[in-house]
Amino acid sequence: MNASDFQRPGSGLEAFFNARGIAIVGASDDINKIGGRPVHLLLKYGYQGPIYPVNPRGGEIQGLRAYTSVRETPTAPDMAILAVPANATAEALRDCAARGVRGAIVLSSGFAEAGAEGAALQAELVEIARGAGMRILGPNCLGTVNVVDGTIGSFSIALEENMPPAGHVGIVSQSGNVGSHTMQCVAHRGLGVSRFIATGNEADIDVADGLAALAHDDATRVILCCMETCRNADRLIAALETARARNKPVIVLKIGATEQGRAAAASHTGALAGSDAVIDAVFRRHGALRVRSIEEMLDVGHAASLLLPSRLPQTDTATLVAASGGFGIMMADAMSEAGIALPPLAAMTRTRINEAVPTAGTNNPVDASAQMSSRPDILLKMLTALLDDPGGSTTVLFMSLSLFSSRLRGIYLEALARVRQSHPERLLVIISHGPADAIAQINALGIPVFGSIDAAAHGLASLVRLSKLREQPAAPRCTGALTRIDPAVFRNEYRAKVALAAAGINVPQESIVGSADEAVCFAEAIGYPVVLKIASEDIAHKTEMGGVALSLRDADAVRTAHARLQDNAAKHAPNARLDGILVAPMLSGGVEMIAGVSRDQVFGPVVMVGMGGIHAEILKDVAVQTAPVSEAEALQMIRSLRMFPVLDGARGQPKADLGALASTVARLSEFACRHADDIAEIDMNPILVRPAGEGAVVLDALMIPAYAAPTTH
Amino acid sequence: MNASDFQRPGSGLEAFFNARGIAIVGASDDINKIGGRPVHLLLKYGYQGPIYPVNPRGGEIQGLRAYTSVRETPTAPDMAILAVPANATAEALRDCAARGVRGAIVLSSGFAEAGAEGAALQAELVEIARGAGMRILGPNCLGTVNVVDGTIGSFSIALEENMPPAGHVGIVSQSGNVGSHTMQCVAHRGLGVSRFIATGNEADIDVADGLAALAHDDATRVILCCMETCRNADRLIAALETARARNKPVIVLKIGATEQGRAAAASHTGALAGSDAVIDAVFRRHGALRVRSIEEMLDVGHAASLLLPSRLPQTDTATLVAASGGFGIMMADAMSEAGIALPPLAAMTRTRINEAVPTAGTNNPVDASAQMSSRPDILLKMLTALLDDPGGSTTVLFMSLSLFSSRLRGIYLEALARVRQSHPERLLVIISHGPADAIAQINALGIPVFGSIDAAAHGLASLVRLSKLREQPAAPRCTGALTRIDPAVFRNEYRAKVALAAAGINVPQESIVGSADEAVCFAEAIGYPVVLKIASEDIAHKTEMGGVALSLRDADAVRTAHARLQDNAAKHAPNARLDGILVAPMLSGGVEMIAGVSRDQVFGPVVMVGMGGIHAEILKDVAVQTAPVSEAEALQMIRSLRMFPVLDGARGQPKADLGALASTVARLSEFACRHADDIAEIDMNPILVRPAGEGAVVLDALMIPAYAAPTTH
Repeated sequence: MNASDFQRPGSGLEAFFNARGIAIVGASDDINKIGGRPVHLLLKYGYQGPIYPVNPRGGEIQGLRAYTSVRETPTAPDMAILAVPANATAEALRDCAARGVRGAIVLSSGFAEAGAEGAALQAELVEIARGAGMRILGPNCLGTVNVVDGTIGSFSIALEENMPPAGHVGIVSQSGNVGSHTMQCVAHRGLGVSRFIATGNEADIDVADGLAALAHDDATRVILCCMETCRNADRLIAALETARARNKPVIVLKIGATEQGRAAAASHTGALAGSDAVIDAVFRRHGALRVRSIEEMLDVGHAASLLLPSRLPQTDTATLVAASGGFGIMMADAMSEAGIALPPLAAMTRTRINEAVPTAGTNNPVDASAQMSSRPDILLKMLTALLDDPGGSTTVLFMSLSLFSSRLRGIYLEALARVRQSHPERLLVIISHGPADAIAQINALGIPVFGSIDAAAHGLASLVRLSKLREQPAAPRCTGALTRIDPAVFRNEYRAKVALAAAGINVPQESIVGSADEAVCFAEAIGYPVVLKIASEDIAHKTEMGGVALSLRDADAVRTAHARLQDNAAKHAPNARLDGILVAPMLSGGVEMIAGVSRDQVFGPVVMVGMGGIHAEILKDVAVQTAPVSEAEALQMIRSLRMFPVLDGARGQPKADLGALASTVARLSEFACRHADDIAEIDMNPILVRPAGEGAVVLDALMIPAYAAPTTH
Repeated sequence: MNASDFQRPGSGLEAFFNARGIAIVGASDDINKIGGRPVHLLLKYGYQGPIYPVNPRGGEIQGLRAYTSVRETPTAPDMAILAVPANATAEALRDCAARGVRGAIVLSSGFAEAGAEGAALQAELVEIARGAGMRILGPNCLGTVNVVDGTIGSFSIALEENMPPAGHVGIVSQSGNVGSHTMQCVAHRGLGVSRFIATGNEADIDVADGLAALAHDDATRVILCCMETCRNADRLIAALETARARNKPVIVLKIGATEQGRAAAASHTGALAGSDAVIDAVFRRHGALRVRSIEEMLDVGHAASLLLPSRLPQTDTATLVAASGGFGIMMADAMSEAGIALPPLAAMTRTRINEAVPTAGTNNPVDASAQMSSRPDILLKMLTALLDDPGGSTTVLFMSLSLFSSRLRGIYLEALARVRQSHPERLLVIISHGPADAIAQINALGIPVFGSIDAAAHGLASLVRLSKLREQPAAPRCTGALTRIDPAVFRNEYRAKVALAAAGINVPQESIVGSADEAVCFAEAIGYPVVLKIASEDIAHKTEMGGVALSLRDADAVRTAHARLQDNAAKHAPNARLDGILVAPMLSGGVEMIAGVSRDQVFGPVVMVGMGGIHAEILKDVAVQTAPVSEAEALQMIRSLRMFPVLDGARGQPKADLGALASTVARLSEFACRHADDIAEIDMNPILVRPAGEGAVVLDALMIPAYAAPTTH
């Protein structure tokens, strides 16, 4: 049984958001009970279709006629809300199936989150739904809200006092409480919500389905997504790509990022949290913006909803203006930390600013002096000059607490209204602490407002990233069918490298030899100096047991080393099966890098690249991406390393052959995809990356089978 | 002329904060003018002493008798506020001096910040004040406010509508606007202010004087300090130590931390911004907490003001509780990033929580489930159990938006009030978004409230740091008089190492020789392998010109290398003065570190330690501190390196001799202090740090004189 067996036409969630008729199974007169509140909310917020409370006692519930079973409702409701105890849910769901219900929301808990017995109950629900072509949301979930028309399948406390204003922000969350809180926060900002969906245990519908539904939904322009776990990589990626194609920013709060957080996550849901770096890479690649807190999600979502469709910032530069140099410095610090550059102003811009305020400082940040708040025409002239600046940067205006002063509030609002009229296409960002009604007025002009300098800097950087994420090229797909690998690759580094060479990866010209004569003969053929290494699948740590001899410069040295290696093997690993002695050229002159492949439980083969050596290892300075990656993506990964300057000519060293390294990583990722069934892990360590034009070569490689390797003897 | 020539008894600012009589020179009837607003504010906020408007026209100003000169006031005012144009200020100041004014606040601009002419005017003011034993605040400043009794020497717009409530937060700022904004923000939080001082150009009184004044002030319990520049190291350190001794947390927003920020700073003030890492180290050492934003300063300052004197957190651990697992995960993530650990709960604690809520998750974070908000007695039992937990952690309660619900607000406030009564000494922290009046009620219970999960995590970590900073041992002082150094140390590494050895630092047994015979003789004495290096003050990059020969294993190798080095010197540096050839043992087996000394313009000699090698250099992974440092401090510096695990036995390597390295750094710092007048820079690169117990040895060293070294030939 697998959720992906279901047919998923379009978004598949119409039965929930546009239900013609809703049954509430386990309905109650008590509006604070889980079966009472949905009925109450549907009535309170004016749902227009028929509402069918279902309760074995029949009679009346909250003034509506109650039915003893869903089977008895006068019309077939599209949606049923199940609020009965876990062990009564299966029967209720069978009734729904019999009555032709298209979607069921199981609010009740006591399923997979509660242990094995609950998991069995949950599996039973899926079985019933599958048989009837019905979709299930939940169990253990907070359901759905269609804010626009009051179609509510939820008992969320967020709706207790008010419905959020209708608008363009869609919310999808695994955690009901987190989603609910997000919806309330959006409303608190005076921002409108389109749809809300909380997926809970995800027996059938998961967060990817929710994302897809919001991406298809015309009322939704910006999607806020709170998730702990991804259960299906393909579906998540498809949903993200749908949102990107439909030009809807997805802002993801993936929770459980740190060890402590993951420990907490493991106790919260039954699912395993995927590797955080991998899901980070997936979001980035498929156009979603990952944020680190609810506040950041709200800040960026709010700003994006004001700027869409056409005014996301195109450059990561800003011109800053404040009425005080001190604030200018703080803004410059924050922008710098967020990666926003501050280009100098054009001469004409400076002249115009000084025409408006002779004492203004016309560096960037602009020190507008206290004059800024004296007359609106001065502020207007200054903002106009900045928005006319040919650099085309976003202008960021710091307002301190000015809007709390009724005199200054008028001055600012007038200037902003006029500048928006004269420069409708340009991006202006305000930093202000409030009050809320003044901020609402500025938002109504289509101008984002951030509550602090840091929030503005991070927010602007996020908007720039959102803008760039939209343009990312499509990720490559695995081409060619899965092919079986010769299990010999798992035996020793020589075999592994032969397979990598066949995949287009550069490896040294090397050979496994038996006798010392053979070793000398091969060494003479490839040229000195050479390296000798023990080749054995039973010896993992060759160096530690004296199985490696470096820098051998002549035949004598090769013979001596050959004898020593065999002695050491006999002494330290008497039972190891030896394949012989590997002879390879002694290569040097370049930067040592590492690359590898591992398998993520959800996302499959993952390729990694990083600097070699203990320093980089301690810093965990690696970049990951799901395989395959294009050469361009591999280059991006390499450039994202903190140690990248080592490859880029730091301290007068030659620049490394980045193209060759990127090609190595890309070929490795394709190889990993082709053999995804057979290979669990690949390590290429080290890869010697030579100066530009001279290539990269994999000096050592190791492959681990995905299964117990068949004996090849 | 130097500001430190002034006598500085006690805080020295009594004339400003407790002025008996205030003259306003350049007083105006227009309350929006710089000379009108101070008079207006003194009247509006009920200053009790005599107010003397001074204006050449005499008559009446704002209903008060105006005087044509300060010389004519009926009593000698303690304080004069100067609001006349820059070029009229000197004369006004002379009048003040003649009348016996003790302190003058120069609000006017047009001094050092405006160029050379203004700087000359500013110097003239200092001259006049010094002659009269008068203190000057400013020029180009926003002056002082004593909130408690309305003694105002400011035209701050922050006072336009209201005076902040009187309380315990003292504010000192160089930038008037930043300080003013801070004061308004403090008031917006419902928190009280004691004194405000903005120092502007700091012709006389600087931010350190302001800090000292607040440290001595009994009304002030927490000091918020906004600074761009430190002009005098000794005074700043003394002020920080006074605050520490008087148990007053100092929270510093040092602005201009990044390159972009410093560029902005340079255009804002005439002063040079000191190296950011150095001032960071100074704050840390002398008990001040550095923050990165106004919001963080306010958050920590607010919390500290509620917790003092006795409830700062003692441990960096927390127990977390939320009504949803999703929030628990987010809290765990944020705490982890802020360095707060989450210990498991005691068995008894878990039992008690489950007695209150059977379905609660009793890991840490506690998942209290929706039950938490149903009845106050449940929340009370749960909080009581957590505060009784023997781990003694801070308890952090996430409230979501619950306080906006009138029902939940009552439940929460009742539970919090009761738990504060039962556990008055324990630290409880709340995360809530508002509303403001509910937060004020919680604050009134002595419970800090943070507006977001991130703010709470950073805030708690900052409170822990504040608590630890109070206990830091006093910094060592330079002992022994400055002594002259033999200029020979600047000639070559051998001489430099001889001087370091005399200072107790371990260097190799090495010698400068002339002939090849001498080289062999010395090599035999110290044992092979050895290294040969060209010794010449004219050759900085020995390796690049073939001036180094490594791993010489016998007499032949030494002779060959000796000849080659001399050839290379003759070929590549024919004009270099050669001191001979250095012969040293070839040492290996350890971790290569670097240490050095540079000179900060404000703080003097600064000692640095870091990892050797290009990786660490690219990451700028170094720790700095002003010299001298104790061995304990040096060890702290070493432990603060990101690469510290390399020294601490990462990947099965032996642990390095940290004690020997710390001793090397401490001795170096003392040496640098003793010769602070003579030496500009010292580089020890590399220092070979061997496994624990085997010591550390400086393999190469370089010293740069503070002056043109006298010729020694």
